[in-house]
Amino acid sequence: MAGKNCLVAQSGGPTAAINASLAGIIEGVLQTEELGIIYGALNGIQGVIRDDLLNLTEIFAGEEEKLNQLKVTPAMYLGSCRYRLPQEYTHSDYEKIFSIFEKYDIGYVFYIGGNDSMDTVLKLSGYAKEYHVPVQVIGVPKTIDNDLAGMDHTPGFGSAAKYIATSMREISYDTAIYNTRSIVIVEIMGRNAGWLTASAALARTECNIAPQLIYLPEVDFSEEQFVKDVTYYADRDEHVLIAVSEGIHDAEGNYISAQTAQVDQFGHTMLSGAGKCLEGLITKHFGCKVRSVELNVLQRGAGHCTSATDLEESMELGRQAVAAALAGKTGEMVILTRTGNAPYAVEYGTCPIVLVANQEKKIPREWINAAGNDVTEELVTYLKPLVQGTVTQPSEDGIPDYIAVDHLHPANRR
Amino acid sequence: MAGKNCLVAQSGGPTAAINASLAGIIEGVLQTEELGIIYGALNGIQGVIRDDLLNLTEIFAGEEEKLNQLKVTPAMYLGSCRYRLPQEYTHSDYEKIFSIFEKYDIGYVFYIGGNDSMDTVLKLSGYAKEYHVPVQVIGVPKTIDNDLAGMDHTPGFGSAAKYIATSMREISYDTAIYNTRSIVIVEIMGRNAGWLTASAALARTECNIAPQLIYLPEVDFSEEQFVKDVTYYADRDEHVLIAVSEGIHDAEGNYISAQTAQVDQFGHTMLSGAGKCLEGLITKHFGCKVRSVELNVLQRGAGHCTSATDLEESMELGRQAVAAALAGKTGEMVILTRTGNAPYAVEYGTCPIVLVANQEKKIPREWINAAGNDVTEELVTYLKPLVQGTVTQPSEDGIPDYIAVDHLHPANRR
Repeated sequence: MAGKNCLVAQSGGPTAAINASLAGIIEGVLQTEELGIIYGALNGIQGVIRDDLLNLTEIFAGEEEKLNQLKVTPAMYLGSCRYRLPQEYTHSDYEKIFSIFEKYDIGYVFYIGGNDSMDTVLKLSGYAKEYHVPVQVIGVPKTIDNDLAGMDHTPGFGSAAKYIATSMREISYDTAIYNTRSIVIVEIMGRNAGWLTASAALARTECNIAPQLIYLPEVDFSEEQFVKDVTYYADRDEHVLIAVSEGIHDAEGNYISAQTAQVDQFGHTMLSGAGKCLEGLITKHFGCKVRSVELNVLQRGAGHCTSATDLEESMELGRQAVAAALAGKTGEMVILTRTGNAPYAVEYGTCPIVLVANQEKKIPREWINAAGNDVTEELVTYLKPLVQGTVTQPSEDGIPDYIAVDHLHPANRR
Repeated sequence: MAGKNCLVAQSGGPTAAINASLAGIIEGVLQTEELGIIYGALNGIQGVIRDDLLNLTEIFAGEEEKLNQLKVTPAMYLGSCRYRLPQEYTHSDYEKIFSIFEKYDIGYVFYIGGNDSMDTVLKLSGYAKEYHVPVQVIGVPKTIDNDLAGMDHTPGFGSAAKYIATSMREISYDTAIYNTRSIVIVEIMGRNAGWLTASAALARTECNIAPQLIYLPEVDFSEEQFVKDVTYYADRDEHVLIAVSEGIHDAEGNYISAQTAQVDQFGHTMLSGAGKCLEGLITKHFGCKVRSVELNVLQRGAGHCTSATDLEESMELGRQAVAAALAGKTGEMVILTRTGNAPYAVEYGTCPIVLVANQEKKIPREWINAAGNDVTEELVTYLKPLVQGTVTQPSEDGIPDYIAVDHLHPANRR
């Protein structure tokens, strides 16, 4: 006889691999007779509060091809939220949430998200313990930022890193074609942790030296040193490609992006990002062709350029979450630990959610060079295995054929 | 006995398919005994002037794998220039160029480029005719902009269109995840012709309505109508995705741009900022989450997301250029003509360069809807075959393994 039902939700920013974790959870639940129906809450915990659930068992049972399509679809099949549960368990949110759990006979909750989302896992599992409600809550990690404590690297990061390295290599080819000096600045996501920006180093080959400079938020940014750095490479190489994190800041903690403001044609003042800001600075100092490129949301949802390693690990973490639930765990997040680099291998486990929630893992200073304008070989060795393997996308008329998400349209919402 | 030698050069902006045309020319020359050595001039016609040639026969003869790597490498293996030859044949440039042709016993010149580059073909072939120099000059088309007169579509366009459609679909998934109103504007290349921006329509599926709005430079842009358009879709769909050409302009011809316009050597106004400008406008009117994304150089050199149709056609045009040379043609550009849509088919030919040089092909008004904010089904039918087929890239450590271009580094230049 089937046991209690399950509920899964997604929260925080999208990645190219978060649906792979969802697919792993669905597969895990469908494959055991100890669990009942699996429901998906739309828009994270908010979908629970407003009783807006999809019956995922109905949608995916016996539909292997559809489950594979879900696995390779970027962004979030169930939608997301950025809602923080209140601190006090007496708040009506909790009553509402646990009444929905009761209504659907939910015994197991899987919450996929980053460090903010793990706060929801912490609070829900805490509530269940305090009020002796038989609901187990398991966190499943995801974030392109790779900044979750407690694990070697995060699902979604490898695919974003692969897209960034691929794009950087292509920009370096684009940049090399003219025999006139040019400087290109690429702004990459990661406000406090520089892992994504660091992965630009993977664009280099024996013959391709670009990007020559990499600036991370872990090191204070100096305008003076920056101009010196760029001068050196512009003189030597003519074409300079620079990777900068959106979160670079000076020694006082002021973001570099806040330094310039431009006014558009309609008279609105617009704050520019780090890339645009440095573009202005370089134009002033060098008077040559300067361009800034912002990878923007493209880097977090490039389903057409995912890492097979990342998607497999993300899906396995979903399966592991189901196994952890069946093993009676709650208030834990599934994790992976690297056990080797040659060959690369990981093993799976869980860790208490308190070690993860609201924490941030930055790049260790010793993995950044002394000058603070590049990464070390150790960091490259760490990154390399994570971008391996190409995923073949189902496609229709030449464009990736992702699973439909029309249930997220407001017309279809409860 | 081998005949005269050949010279090939590339000019103008990069594409993901221009090296495929180069590979086709090299293959064509290597496969016939009627032609001698094939040289590549670095940085277009400027490489001829400064006597900076690569012996491509030495590099590629018997190297099939290397030739395939060249075919799938984006940007320009030989580098580029934006140099316009003087109008008067008495200018020293011509004496220099034709003395280099004589020095290397060049009888055939292949010049790969867009409408500006075809001006070089026009002038060189004109000079050879006027002074009875036995040098034939053949143009080989390329441009992501799809704005060359005389042919159904241009090599490089299909791959850029595929990248744009793929990215737009991924952005639409990214945009759909929150249950709060959001508007995303994507700025796409195309100064005067909207073909690239129009290809955003290929992101749509039966279930995916985004992008809801497409603004092209072929129609005057009205701020007032734009706000009405966005209001309608924001109320209906909550999430609105908008494709805009970098070249949109008002009825007086003023670009909708947030930045001071610069002018390049050919007198074109260089643009960036339509997306940012509209971001400011929408923020003022709607007060919701607004984001603008600029696909920037990513869209013209995305070797990891090319159209197999485009690469095959581009390579075949290279082979056809060699055949045209052997057939005694000069002052002509190789072209392709569409002969069917179901199944899609093209045939190859040539056309006099005067019909192409310095011309621009825009989207016919009847392929744009009456309101001027979307494309028609005819345009979608035209676009669809061009993005078909996926190309498998050689890769190393998970990142595309493109052919080395260290010969473009200033340290290796003559």
